[in-house]
Amino acid sequence: MPAKSPKTLNELFHDTLKDIYYAEKKILTALPKMAKAAQSEDLCAAFEKHHGETEEQVSRLEQVFELIQQKPQGKKCVAIEGILEEGEEIMKEYEGAPALDAGLLAAAQAVEHYEISRYGTMRAWAEEMGLEDAAKLLQATLDEEGATDEALTALAATAINEAAEELDPA
Amino acid sequence: MPAKSPKTLNELFHDTLKDIYYAEKKILTALPKMAKAAQSEDLCAAFEKHHGETEEQVSRLEQVFELIQQKPQGKKCVAIEGILEEGEEIMKEYEGAPALDAGLLAAAQAVEHYEISRYGTMRAWAEEMGLEDAAKLLQATLDEEGATDEALTALAATAINEAAEELDPA
Repeated sequence: MPAKSPKTLNELFHDTLKDIYYAEKKILTALPKMAKAAQSEDLCAAFEKHHGETEEQVSRLEQVFELIQQKPQGKKCVAIEGILEEGEEIMKEYEGAPALDAGLLAAAQAVEHYEISRYGTMRAWAEEMGLEDAAKLLQATLDEEGATDEALTALAATAINEAAEELDPA
Repeated sequence: MPAKSPKTLNELFHDTLKDIYYAEKKILTALPKMAKAAQSEDLCAAFEKHHGETEEQVSRLEQVFELIQQKPQGKKCVAIEGILEEGEEIMKEYEGAPALDAGLLAAAQAVEHYEISRYGTMRAWAEEMGLEDAAKLLQATLDEEGATDEALTALAATAINEAAEELDPA
C-alpha cells in the first residue's frame, strides 16, 4: 500500500477498515449487555452466538490489515456509536416492558445492516484493487452478517407476537 | 392507540416512527450537500432524485402518524446523526480527491441500510398490530430504499473504477 496523498481508493479502504475495526470492537462490548437484557432465552443465545462470531470477524479484519501491510488500528466510528446508543436507550426505556425484546431486535438489526453496508462496500473495493485474499475474508464476514440478520428476523416474529399479546384489547 | 404504560408494541412503534421521522428530515438536509459535493454528474443526479423521494417518504410517515391518531413529531435519532456525520467527514477529508465519490457512495449506502432496517422492522410491527394501511405505506418506502441502494451499488462500480485508475501503478 504506497501513496499517502492524494487520497485514493487504497487510502479510503484503509480508513474504512479502521472504522469497521473500531465498530466491531464496540459491538463486542455491547453484545453481552444486550444478551443480559434480553427477556427470551432464544434472543440471549442469539446475542451470545453473535459475540463469538464477532470475535472471529475482528480476527479477519486483523488479517486484512496484515494483507495491506498495516498495523491493526481503530478510528472512531461515530455511526456505530449512534446506532449502539439507540440500543442502550431501548434497554433503559423498555426495561421489564413487554416490547423490550422487539426493541432489542430492532436495534440489533440496525447494527447488522450497518455492517452489511460496510462489508459490501469494502469487498467491492478490495476486488477492484486486486486484493483477492482480503475480498474473501470480507465476503466471509458479509455472509455471516447476512445470516445473523435473517436469524434475527425469525426471532423478531416471535418477539413481536409476544409484545402484541400484551396490547390492550381496546 | 391507547395505553401509555406498560410499554407495549404500539408504544415502541410510535417511538420508532418518531425516530425515523427525525432521521428522514435530517437526510433531507444532508442530500443537497452530498449532491453538491459529488464529482460525477450521475452521482449528483442520484442524490437529487433521492431528495425528491425522501420528501415523499416524509409525507408517507405523516400519513402513518395520522393512521395511529398521533401528531407528526420527531425524536432525536442519534444513529442517523452518527451515520450522516461520517458522510460529512468524507466530504471534508476527501474534498477534491480521486476517491471522494466512492466514499460518498459508501456513506449514502450506510444511510440506505439504516433506513431499510427501520422500515423492515416497522412494516412487520404494523402488520402484527393489524395496521394494514400503515404497513402498505411503510412497504412502499422500503421498496424505494431498496431500489435506491441498488442504484447506488451500480454507480459505485464506476466510482471505484475511477478512483482506482488514479492509484499509483506501484
